[in-house]
Amino acid sequence: MIHPTAFISDKATIGKQANIGPYSIIHDNVVLGDRVQIGAYCELGLPSPNARGSALIIEDDALIRSHSVFYESSSFGKGLATGHHVIVRENTVAGEGFQIGTFSEIQGDCEIGMFVRFQSNVFVSKYTKIGNYVWVLPYVIFTNDPTPPSNHMIGCIIDDYASICASSIILPGVRVSEYALVCASACVTKDVPCHMAVAGVPAKIIGEAKSIMRRDGSGVSAYPWKTHFHRGYPKEVVDGWMVQQDMMTSGENQ
Amino acid sequence: MIHPTAFISDKATIGKQANIGPYSIIHDNVVLGDRVQIGAYCELGLPSPNARGSALIIEDDALIRSHSVFYESSSFGKGLATGHHVIVRENTVAGEGFQIGTFSEIQGDCEIGMFVRFQSNVFVSKYTKIGNYVWVLPYVIFTNDPTPPSNHMIGCIIDDYASICASSIILPGVRVSEYALVCASACVTKDVPCHMAVAGVPAKIIGEAKSIMRRDGSGVSAYPWKTHFHRGYPKEVVDGWMVQQDMMTSGENQ
Amino acid sequence: MIHPTAFISDKATIGKQANIGPYSIIHDNVVLGDRVQIGAYCELGLPSPNARGSALIIEDDALIRSHSVFYESSSFGKGLATGHHVIVRENTVAGEGFQIGTFSEIQGDCEIGMFVRFQSNVFVSKYTKIGNYVWVLPYVIFTNDPTPPSNHMIGCIIDDYASICASSIILPGVRVSEYALVCASACVTKDVPCHMAVAGVPAKIIGEAKSIMRRDGSGVSAYPWKTHFHRGYPKEVVDGWMVQQDMMTSGENQ
Repeated sequence: MIHPTAFISDKATIGKQANIGPYSIIHDNVVLGDRVQIGAYCELGLPSPNARGSALIIEDDALIRSHSVFYESSSFGKGLATGHHVIVRENTVAGEGFQIGTFSEIQGDCEIGMFVRFQSNVFVSKYTKIGNYVWVLPYVIFTNDPTPPSNHMIGCIIDDYASICASSIILPGVRVSEYALVCASACVTKDVPCHMAVAGVPAKIIGEAKSIMRRDGSGVSAYPWKTHFHRGYPKEVVDGWMVQQDMMTSGENQ
Repeated sequence: MIHPTAFISDKATIGKQANIGPYSIIHDNVVLGDRVQIGAYCELGLPSPNARGSALIIEDDALIRSHSVFYESSSFGKGLATGHHVIVRENTVAGEGFQIGTFSEIQGDCEIGMFVRFQSNVFVSKYTKIGNYVWVLPYVIFTNDPTPPSNHMIGCIIDDYASICASSIILPGVRVSEYALVCASACVTKDVPCHMAVAGVPAKIIGEAKSIMRRDGSGVSAYPWKTHFHRGYPKEVVDGWMVQQDMMTSGENQ
Repeated sequence: MIHPTAFISDKATIGKQANIGPYSIIHDNVVLGDRVQIGAYCELGLPSPNARGSALIIEDDALIRSHSVFYESSSFGKGLATGHHVIVRENTVAGEGFQIGTFSEIQGDCEIGMFVRFQSNVFVSKYTKIGNYVWVLPYVIFTNDPTPPSNHMIGCIIDDYASICASSIILPGVRVSEYALVCASACVTKDVPCHMAVAGVPAKIIGEAKSIMRRDGSGVSAYPWKTHFHRGYPKEVVDGWMVQQDMMTSGENQ
């Protein structure tokens, strides 16, 4: 259902069973998949002089909440879900199952993998690269200018399964490696090795992420989280994690 | 006055002398008191699968500024005042005189007392409990997940008359006790005792809040603030504070 | 072009070739220059009981992106450019070429010089004074209440050519002097002398800004940035910088 107050360009492509809310605007250069839901006061496909010219592509089953703005020339795999008041600029490519929290902003020219989850108020500078299954908690900032202002931007790199906790900031060009944990309020000035946890301003290694225990009384390690946290991931992904885990456990027992 | 471009469900209940701005949307499950003012581009009573099913109740004399979104199943005592672009999710209960600054977000399932004041860009995770007469300055974050991502959320508890200064973060399950002061940029990882001031990353006790002097040349203590800051509180509340203070002073003099 | 869904007060003054987007609202007390572009869902000239009564004045060639709100009684020199979801309250005066990033908020009663650039999510408390050619990176907070809550506000002062890096906070009444650099995540509790760099919580002097090298392989100092960063400044401004620099270099060589 398309609300009568929504403006939809007749050059835009809208899939089946789309739902477009009151007062929303869909510009020319937009391709929406099936069952896409757009809230009120959204603007999709805004033109930009920096855009590559390709369409804003939002695949099937997306949910974009109210007051959000997406520019042209970005693409999102199926199952995108956003909070309210989300801004995404041009030339960003994100995989399946991307979640973006309320008040988050992606400044464009970013690469984002599969099943990445941003909570609220995440700020992503241009040229940031984020892997798969990464968690980014509220008010995390990914920067790109090492000596502001300059013309030499260096994006951060966040590898698969990293967790970046609330209110931390990643300085330009820093790599947070696979399974690493950045603790709340950290200012990360140097690369974080695989599986390590860092904390503080500036951030220092405080140990292995796996040394942090769950707080649910289970007495087992909180990391890697994929051993016990499966909410919202497709069955085949979780099954893959379980097979890996069985293999590792049986390896350890030999 | 209801603007002709506003959509008001005929299932919603609107009090007397309401003022609803251009392009705003009031869904079915909403009860607004008398003299409520809603700015432009607001959406009230948004349905949620996690909501308890009760109405969004906003009592008399509320002012909700533009571009704000409130979900169903929360309730607010009289005199609610919000900034612009405020997001409040479902199942939150707040007392009289609540103020919420621009760009603040309440994620739902929270309890908030009387005369609580949030400045701009305050982020409140699910299950946070805030007492009465609490002050929360800009960019404060109340977290709830001790080992993200997990399924074991633990809300923060903020007791009466606490002040939480700008850009500080309260880690999951931490209690900030009555009259405590959290200084700017603090990362609070442990409970803060009554009347104490904490600062730093991680936050440490720096002394009693009352040892901090006012900066207005008066040469007297800045805390507890209720001895000298009364702006916007009802006369009967301030009178109660004054009686308490007289009793304490006379007790000290004996 | 004024979109048919925009509401424009007939008391407002709109210059030539203005472009006002869908669903935007221009109140009575507004004066817009020529070639001003206003995005969708913006509200300009909102009345305020604290306003001086003068018009909101936006000079020629401004670009205000969607979902932004400006109150009456502020004025902006030519070439204002904002991101989306920007809030500017009353009684603020800003010079030519001001840029304000997405989700930034100016609380009013501020003075801002020429060619000041705010990136996203900058928060400016009342009574802040900012000079010329200042850079403010994302999530910077300028505070004003030394003992919250109080009635004694003291604005920050930021002098010409200062750079304030991401996620830093400037405490009430602090002065950041000319050409100073505040590093990312700093909590600045004391005045910063000219040309110095500060970092940490609380911030301490780490050396002269000019000791920080550019990261582009050039092997030269990153500060003062005006020696090498000229993007977006008018030719006459840059020419002035170059003449100054030639004089300094020739002075050094004598």
